[in-house]
Amino acid sequence: MKSRHLEILKGHNYGDLILETNHWFILLAPDQKNLGTCVVALKRKEGNLAGLKDKEWIDLKEIIKNLQSALRKAFNATMFNWGCLMNSSYRKDHPDPHVHWHFIPRYREKVEFEGVTFEDPCFGFSTMYSKDGVRRLPEYTRRKINEKIRENLEI
Amino acid sequence: MKSRHLEILKGHNYGDLILETNHWFILLAPDQKNLGTCVVALKRKEGNLAGLKDKEWIDLKEIIKNLQSALRKAFNATMFNWGCLMNSSYRKDHPDPHVHWHFIPRYREKVEFEGVTFEDPCFGFSTMYSKDGVRRLPEYTRRKINEKIRENLEI
Repeated sequence: MKSRHLEILKGHNYGDLILETNHWFILLAPDQKNLGTCVVALKRKEGNLAGLKDKEWIDLKEIIKNLQSALRKAFNATMFNWGCLMNSSYRKDHPDPHVHWHFIPRYREKVEFEGVTFEDPCFGFSTMYSKDGVRRLPEYTRRKINEKIRENLEI
Repeated sequence: MKSRHLEILKGHNYGDLILETNHWFILLAPDQKNLGTCVVALKRKEGNLAGLKDKEWIDLKEIIKNLQSALRKAFNATMFNWGCLMNSSYRKDHPDPHVHWHFIPRYREKVEFEGVTFEDPCFGFSTMYSKDGVRRLPEYTRRKINEKIRENLEI
């Protein structure tokens, strides 16, 4: 998949591209504590959520619908957290935020995929992330998760 | 302010009503660790973010723009976190989630309002909430914050 917009992802650590829509990249996040955690990143340079254009906002709504549906079908996710934070950019002296969303599937039950077990010990608690650091997976497993999400996305 | 939709807020602890738009309530959250923290709650019963109607989604975009602008003008907020979680509902045996957003203004500098000092010790860190429990304020201070936000909202 080639996109003239890929330049925008440089300097960010959003993960591996799964799919792109007209206005957003959908990426498999580096941290897979919660199986299928994604980042949804805008394809143009914009640092303020309030600066989104109507067509970008409408496109995002379709992504929410499709990504949630895909994760239910692929991994039986129970529910989902969405967050637009951009905090870490503000640690810099000259903040250069870029609008992106964290999409975190939450699981009531543990789930196995490609021989790997995923649990969600913070399920039901008022936090978007569990506190147990970053869970990185082997390249092979990441590719399989990526493919599984993509084949369930109706975009 | 009277609304035939207020019934929807019963059983939730979203805080005090600031304003309502066509489709959403804007409320001052109980926890004011971060000055001006709000909840934006849908005015009809819906437990799935993907179930929002287009007109509700468009209305939300206007709220994002206006609420961010209001908090900059009122308290000089630096940037903002938005999150749709609904985790706590899933602690129940029979989850009954209701679509609502957490709006958390973030502050690089400490800010004083009505003789009360607010700091944001987790500014720049990758978390939506700081971990220092809930900060409840006296009724008088809450009312003043509420008024200050409302007078800066161009809705």
